[in-house]
Amino acid sequence: MTTVTFLPAGRTVQVDEGTALLDAATTAGVLVEAPCGGEGTCGECRLRVEAGAVEQVRAGCLSNEELEEGWVLACSSRVAGDVTVTVPEEPEEARGPRVAGREVDGRPAEAGIEPFARRVALDVEPPSLENSFSDLERLERAADAGTLGCGLQVLRELAAALRSEDGRVTATISGGRLLRVQAGDTVRSSHGVAVDIGTTTCAVHLVELARGRIVGTAADYNGQIARGLDIISRINYARTPGRLDELRGLVLGTLNGLVGGLCRSHQVEPGDVDGASVAGNTTMVHLLLGLDPEQIRLEPYTPTVNRPPALPAREVGLEILPAAPVCFAPGVGSYVGGDITAGLLTSSLATDDEGVALFLDIGTNGEVVVGNNEWLMACAASAGPAFEGSGVSCGVRAASGAVERVVVDGASGRARVSVIGGGKARGICGSGMIDLLAELAAHGLLDPSGKLNPDRCPADRLRRDGRTLGYVVVDEGDSATGEALVIDENDLQNLLRTKAAIYSACSLMLRSVGLGFDDVTRVHVAGAFGRYLDLERSIRIGLLPDVPRDRFVYLGNAALAGAHALLTSARARDKVAELADRMTYLELNVDPSYMDEYMAALFLPHTDLDRFPSLKGGKE
Amino acid sequence: MTTVTFLPAGRTVQVDEGTALLDAATTAGVLVEAPCGGEGTCGECRLRVEAGAVEQVRAGCLSNEELEEGWVLACSSRVAGDVTVTVPEEPEEARGPRVAGREVDGRPAEAGIEPFARRVALDVEPPSLENSFSDLERLERAADAGTLGCGLQVLRELAAALRSEDGRVTATISGGRLLRVQAGDTVRSSHGVAVDIGTTTCAVHLVELARGRIVGTAADYNGQIARGLDIISRINYARTPGRLDELRGLVLGTLNGLVGGLCRSHQVEPGDVDGASVAGNTTMVHLLLGLDPEQIRLEPYTPTVNRPPALPAREVGLEILPAAPVCFAPGVGSYVGGDITAGLLTSSLATDDEGVALFLDIGTNGEVVVGNNEWLMACAASAGPAFEGSGVSCGVRAASGAVERVVVDGASGRARVSVIGGGKARGICGSGMIDLLAELAAHGLLDPSGKLNPDRCPADRLRRDGRTLGYVVVDEGDSATGEALVIDENDLQNLLRTKAAIYSACSLMLRSVGLGFDDVTRVHVAGAFGRYLDLERSIRIGLLPDVPRDRFVYLGNAALAGAHALLTSARARDKVAELADRMTYLELNVDPSYMDEYMAALFLPHTDLDRFPSLKGGKE
Repeated sequence: MTTVTFLPAGRTVQVDEGTALLDAATTAGVLVEAPCGGEGTCGECRLRVEAGAVEQVRAGCLSNEELEEGWVLACSSRVAGDVTVTVPEEPEEARGPRVAGREVDGRPAEAGIEPFARRVALDVEPPSLENSFSDLERLERAADAGTLGCGLQVLRELAAALRSEDGRVTATISGGRLLRVQAGDTVRSSHGVAVDIGTTTCAVHLVELARGRIVGTAADYNGQIARGLDIISRINYARTPGRLDELRGLVLGTLNGLVGGLCRSHQVEPGDVDGASVAGNTTMVHLLLGLDPEQIRLEPYTPTVNRPPALPAREVGLEILPAAPVCFAPGVGSYVGGDITAGLLTSSLATDDEGVALFLDIGTNGEVVVGNNEWLMACAASAGPAFEGSGVSCGVRAASGAVERVVVDGASGRARVSVIGGGKARGICGSGMIDLLAELAAHGLLDPSGKLNPDRCPADRLRRDGRTLGYVVVDEGDSATGEALVIDENDLQNLLRTKAAIYSACSLMLRSVGLGFDDVTRVHVAGAFGRYLDLERSIRIGLLPDVPRDRFVYLGNAALAGAHALLTSARARDKVAELADRMTYLELNVDPSYMDEYMAALFLPHTDLDRFPSLKGGKE
Repeated sequence: MTTVTFLPAGRTVQVDEGTALLDAATTAGVLVEAPCGGEGTCGECRLRVEAGAVEQVRAGCLSNEELEEGWVLACSSRVAGDVTVTVPEEPEEARGPRVAGREVDGRPAEAGIEPFARRVALDVEPPSLENSFSDLERLERAADAGTLGCGLQVLRELAAALRSEDGRVTATISGGRLLRVQAGDTVRSSHGVAVDIGTTTCAVHLVELARGRIVGTAADYNGQIARGLDIISRINYARTPGRLDELRGLVLGTLNGLVGGLCRSHQVEPGDVDGASVAGNTTMVHLLLGLDPEQIRLEPYTPTVNRPPALPAREVGLEILPAAPVCFAPGVGSYVGGDITAGLLTSSLATDDEGVALFLDIGTNGEVVVGNNEWLMACAASAGPAFEGSGVSCGVRAASGAVERVVVDGASGRARVSVIGGGKARGICGSGMIDLLAELAAHGLLDPSGKLNPDRCPADRLRRDGRTLGYVVVDEGDSATGEALVIDENDLQNLLRTKAAIYSACSLMLRSVGLGFDDVTRVHVAGAFGRYLDLERSIRIGLLPDVPRDRFVYLGNAALAGAHALLTSARARDKVAELADRMTYLELNVDPSYMDEYMAALFLPHTDLDRFPSLKGGKE
């Protein structure tokens, strides 16, 4: 047992080594809030280590400076011996969503919530014979917001609202428009949703807008995946008349299901969701809006829109306040979309002034950004959804029941797994896949080309289906479905293609600006791998480059965190527009050496072992 | 016969004295366009008299300076002897709607059409691998209009439109929003509608937006009149649930009927009507928008909105381009609405810097404005619709079949009438009513209190219905309906109440600022009286004040002309907002002397004959 001391309260608690710092705080009765649900994205749970040791699993949204000052995220750190930490006593009102990076004006990023749609409680003066101000004019004067545009529904409800509670009303305002007027003070009921539309997975934060706080998060497969696993197959599917509408309906079904479920769980009326922010790749945004994506597929790969204007929810089809504005993270081109610009908001890449940094978003489409506070360049690699639980027979999203860690016992050749939420395994998520590849290779069960070695695999671990060989990860008895979880050589090839696409995109991108991995001061890794991405194993399979480990930052679902920032911070909205302006797009396919790079990366870790010097010498 | 010479062409024509100058031009084969249909509002038909005499029936929208320079409106002037006139050779492109008044920057008011919604033909660069500009971004660059907002429909049609005619497209833009993109150049198809919603009558101009030219005008009774003749009865009617929607549907039926009819007549697609401007009193605007008008009736008489924001046609319910913006002339209060501010645009009242001027809008609600270029004050009088063909048994709108002039023969006591368009009479319009009152009084058939004098009326002219006496204006045989047109004492009392309300409002308004009629340098009279308002007779019945006749300007339907200006001129839109800002509202009912003033005016011309010095001495 170790002792954890929480300052300034001075409360102590005895816990096992390895206990999450957040759990230790809870045990000690010290309030440390983690509204993002332990994603490492909101920064609300940060603590400063005054003495002793914690194992920091990931740095999340903390900046270099903060890390140097000893800040850790309670949700992402474990007790590694007796330790004393300080819980910051920030006034709650001053906290907001975090946008990583140094601030030009020196203020911390979380100061000042400015939601895209905000509610303000107003005391509107009563009408009088002394002037002829209309209801709208008196409300505008009370709001001190100049002339407000509005739709008819607002005007139709205005007179009654103003006369119901002696002029006390709450106005919902966005972009100079009055979206709603309600009698009384309803400011605290105002919510928003931050939405990440991935090709494979959609994720939503329900956010309390007055405080910027995430009250719940939900994710599900994008309902479109039955109509094609990747972007190009979706675009092809949409070519038949009627199917664009079908795809639109499918993703709306997913999103409205997630939003509706969150609202029910947290007793929020969908009509109290006043705004939404959306981060998605260009094709996903086109399909959500019912825009023909055909030109995205055809040279010169031109989308209808990179930066959709804010649209009312009723037009988009989101089942929230009909007049609520839906804003979109700006895209840069057909293959670098708003998910990337939003994700960058949560990293310090675009603000660092030392060297250059890499940003990798490992999703169905792997995108890579390289740059710093002066320049940004982006490219896209068709990674495929293998790490997102799709395109691999036993793959699942990183959710309850997913195998997130795998260790292969060298002697028996059997896999030991940890399952999210405990219980039986439903499938294997991205982090589990990385572990599995690395462990199988380390013990020689898998050769560098991704072929299973029947001589090294115990017979009870092997399954043969026709000419295809597979490895049993989880036996029937430990599987939630009653069927063994097997990874076969097709799955293994898919995983290799995915990791090769990411790595070769990084490598080529750097080479295109005359740099190599050694020049990279920081590698920001985003993706929905589950709570833990094993860095060492990611390098060992050649997904991530072999650079000093302290240069890596794991951001989790950066697109979703970025959407949250857009929803609640005016500065984030300004910044993301500036990022998009600044970013240039590199088309990998036109580089003749891309195919060579890619083919060379289709090995574990790579055909050129000199690129992975730390792996040489036969370490485990 | 007299000779009319048209310069610079030098063409001459022989016509009868009294011929309209416009008709003389037509006979001479000289093109003088009068797109407003002879309303005197557009100013397009103005000519300069070089030598000889014309009888100017009304000055219309001409300014004092223009009148002094010899300009006349061909539509509103008659040949009074040999005359030489110059037809101005303005380049057609430079012409636009006229907004009366002196120009701050010295440019004539008609320079530069800037419709509220404008189409621009663009050549959009083709997409290219060299950049990643989206379709929308390339269109924005071509339009050089910054970032444009837009709805989904526009985005959905954008890719196809851009690829249909090699990037040649027409964008319809309003207020920084892209309303539509069409393949090819469709600029010349762009139209707009200017709408005047009166309590009794609605009128619409169909306008070719690229040139600001009125291509057609139509008017009809407001479909709501069966639900109450005046504002208060409409508001009362709307108090029962469901009836607000009914009233809204009725006026929309009227407007869509007028717009649809104009579009059919002029081969314009309703979807090519890109914008609408609306001038209406505050209650009419509330009813059009489905806003509960109840608070307009109740002290302190507070409307929901004085200055409605621009709204898309689909939301308003106008059957034109669904995304077309509908803009509204700003109101000042519950009883001084956008019809007055729009109407003022067509007069020089708000720009004159000499003395003070009056503006009278004689409609169902009579409004009066007094002021100059420094201050403006307005009030409203419940005039009633007697001059608009409603509230009087044989009253009709000034349209084909209406008696517009009446002369009573002193000897026989019979009326001779002129009917608009010739043919049999359907009823009597406002100008006919004024003539009738004046003529009956002049010949002693009507006493100053509005009672018919049975001793002076020939027996065949009298009709008695119970205790009510009536005068036969048109016999059965000359009536289009086969029934005699009779004006009875109830009708006469209605007419007296109307004219008394107008006169006493003017009088009281002036007194409230310490002025009298003698201080008034110009009297602008607006109202839908038909083509000619007989000034002398209007004074003789005490409707208009007894001031030198050259101080009067008859504006016709000023609200409609003002709506036209709003539709096509950015300067008019700025100016009308400034007028509304500047105007203060005087509530007549709170002035204890109002009732005395009103009662005293319920005579022909007035109980105090000293107020009408020019009528003393027994002139006819």
